[in-house]
Amino acid sequence: MLSIRNVSKQFVEKLFFTADNIHLRDKNSLAGKTLINAFFEPSTRTSLSFESAMYKMGGNVITFNKDVSSVKKGESFEDTIRTLSLYGDAMVIRHPEKGLVEKASNIIDIPVINGGDGDGEHPTQALLDLYTIYKSFPTLENLKILFVGDVKHSRTINSLIDILQFYPTNKLFFLPFENREPSSEFLYTTGIAHSQIMDNMLINKIDLDISFYDVIYCTRLQKERSDKEDSKVDIIIDKNMVNSMKDTAIIMHPLPRNEEIHPIVDNDKRCKYFDQMKYGLDIRMALLHELIKNQ
Amino acid sequence: MLSIRNVSKQFVEKLFFTADNIHLRDKNSLAGKTLINAFFEPSTRTSLSFESAMYKMGGNVITFNKDVSSVKKGESFEDTIRTLSLYGDAMVIRHPEKGLVEKASNIIDIPVINGGDGDGEHPTQALLDLYTIYKSFPTLENLKILFVGDVKHSRTINSLIDILQFYPTNKLFFLPFENREPSSEFLYTTGIAHSQIMDNMLINKIDLDISFYDVIYCTRLQKERSDKEDSKVDIIIDKNMVNSMKDTAIIMHPLPRNEEIHPIVDNDKRCKYFDQMKYGLDIRMALLHELIKNQ
Amino acid sequence: MLSIRNVSKQFVEKLFFTADNIHLRDKNSLAGKTLINAFFEPSTRTSLSFESAMYKMGGNVITFNKDVSSVKKGESFEDTIRTLSLYGDAMVIRHPEKGLVEKASNIIDIPVINGGDGDGEHPTQALLDLYTIYKSFPTLENLKILFVGDVKHSRTINSLIDILQFYPTNKLFFLPFENREPSSEFLYTTGIAHSQIMDNMLINKIDLDISFYDVIYCTRLQKERSDKEDSKVDIIIDKNMVNSMKDTAIIMHPLPRNEEIHPIVDNDKRCKYFDQMKYGLDIRMALLHELIKNQ
Repeated sequence: MLSIRNVSKQFVEKLFFTADNIHLRDKNSLAGKTLINAFFEPSTRTSLSFESAMYKMGGNVITFNKDVSSVKKGESFEDTIRTLSLYGDAMVIRHPEKGLVEKASNIIDIPVINGGDGDGEHPTQALLDLYTIYKSFPTLENLKILFVGDVKHSRTINSLIDILQFYPTNKLFFLPFENREPSSEFLYTTGIAHSQIMDNMLINKIDLDISFYDVIYCTRLQKERSDKEDSKVDIIIDKNMVNSMKDTAIIMHPLPRNEEIHPIVDNDKRCKYFDQMKYGLDIRMALLHELIKNQ
Repeated sequence: MLSIRNVSKQFVEKLFFTADNIHLRDKNSLAGKTLINAFFEPSTRTSLSFESAMYKMGGNVITFNKDVSSVKKGESFEDTIRTLSLYGDAMVIRHPEKGLVEKASNIIDIPVINGGDGDGEHPTQALLDLYTIYKSFPTLENLKILFVGDVKHSRTINSLIDILQFYPTNKLFFLPFENREPSSEFLYTTGIAHSQIMDNMLINKIDLDISFYDVIYCTRLQKERSDKEDSKVDIIIDKNMVNSMKDTAIIMHPLPRNEEIHPIVDNDKRCKYFDQMKYGLDIRMALLHELIKNQ
Repeated sequence: MLSIRNVSKQFVEKLFFTADNIHLRDKNSLAGKTLINAFFEPSTRTSLSFESAMYKMGGNVITFNKDVSSVKKGESFEDTIRTLSLYGDAMVIRHPEKGLVEKASNIIDIPVINGGDGDGEHPTQALLDLYTIYKSFPTLENLKILFVGDVKHSRTINSLIDILQFYPTNKLFFLPFENREPSSEFLYTTGIAHSQIMDNMLINKIDLDISFYDVIYCTRLQKERSDKEDSKVDIIIDKNMVNSMKDTAIIMHPLPRNEEIHPIVDNDKRCKYFDQMKYGLDIRMALLHELIKNQ
């Protein structure tokens, strides 16, 4: 599981089927199996989510953090990965550098899951996002999906758009924070890929009619990816905005959240960001089950 | 399990009964269950003790430390707690701020155990302390209990006094380090709660007759809670003092210990501080068993 | 398992027999058992290897790192070890100070494994090294063994030489980096112990005939053990050198490796350093099995 681009629609649908039924399965199906969480950059949420998924199926987890490693003794990335691979049955790798996860997968024999590689991909996030949409809209057809926030820097949005190409009847729209507009190349490429007309995709805050959308996908302002304070959270999902949404709409967010969604709306049935976390566990359980079970 | 003040005498006695028999139980009674150790302030001893307790019953543990968390990305305490709650079946929370553990318990659906909240409580420590006394004096009646050391700052002493109110025939006494005397309000309140006369409770080092007491509960000097070096360990449990104690007396200490108990007395049968650690495991196993088993 | 010097040839051979068959055993033979990894100095590789070994037999692991411990609150080494010992069924201790592991073993009741104590020993490394030789040369007789690299500082080489005394028909040779020659006392003592003539043991780079040796055991330059940059890696195992080796020779390295073995030779069948890691797991599984199973 290195990239959404290697994945077929058929694989996605099989995975969703496994995830739908994962809690009916033998709670001990991965007993005696060990997952290696190899984190060359910290990420509590992704790391703990995979850890929890393994435990829920009776497996174990070995966590490697770069900071306490033999990397300090001058060991190469390749040697570290090869050594770690001996300790378990599958490996999640997170690395700040794009492409290093794929490199790792070429030198070891156990299945590798990309847990995020720099500006590259985070395919399990895209899968859990799509799975969350599917749980509310099982056909995944004819939806109007609005991406809100730091559209310029969100790896999450990029990956979800990639996987949405399997479902071309959906329409995509973008409502960015100030100075976090997507480039016109991005809009053009996305438009082509999804057979949509570019002009309609970029929404102006003033013209926004929130009642039009089925999925509102929010992201936080990624302050760490920009040098100067050139932007601000100028769109906030608050009680007024939620009240204007369709009754069937869903609000998503990859978390962590800052102020872009007001906590007062958390208990509205349309808010799905905590369900999204829960579905993330199901998807990761399903994925680990598929990758490890039959080894 | 948020506070000793929410606990009934009946609950305590049921828990002690469970703890007495915990090693006779199915060693796999919490298989497939996960405890979340959420530590917003470090505490090796409490963290490892709960971890060991889960493992002894076949369960797993996910450890969250604030230092490597999304808290850095500006996430609220509430969002962090909600997310963590999805990963397991019960949560131990330790937090430097009083009241935050109770706050957490109000926003999540799984059982919460207070692992210490600032100057607040540390209820499982009080339970294991009382359990240790009970293992030597099963009736918990008519004991003379002497608290030695940093009486002014000891959260442990406060919590044990709270739970001792269920057993009003015991008499409490205090032998503080220099400048670590309890306030007269503290003595007065304690005296009232335990129906005792205040004047007799505060013991002077010179008048000390150690042979009078059944339980000698020592604490270390909490240097980290005081700005200047205004105190010192001027009472040390040494061989002479132990030799003067009743044959049936017990010496307790919540550990870690510094110089207030000399290591030479560790093997005296009256020294119970390592047994206390062991009983702590039994109590925590019993508590986890009660909270998680029937979910 | 404190030192190679306490171990009999019979124990070693029994352990190798157990390791040979460890993957045929019940995968759950250590269910409900907990290993305590007590690391007073960091070592990812040793720590993760023991962790993986426990998981492969159904057991659990509690990891203690000095940096987050009550040691900060002034607790003694003895109290820390006693407390930790309550959490599990066996303990691996790594400590920067020679002799402290043995000290620990005298104050606690559970089995103790030396995971490396300063300039002292690292007995499980010696066992896995010998086991690796045994897997290629089952009789362990009449081998020519060449030690290459930082012979002066290598604890690994010292420990392997110790255990090789059980097999006196083997001949030992040394090919050191510049300024990392073993002392003549070391050569003399080794020569005596192995009934060999000292003059032949130290090999000159220019006279080297690599085709003569059965086992080539390389070590890295231990920069952290020397104040000034007085040495360099002036011997590199490269394609030319490997091509000149016997067809049946094996190349070993305790890892981590720096530039002393060129990665281009990694896939040569004579390179055994990754197998060595794998055998290390088997040996540690066998050792934990022997120490914990019958408690």
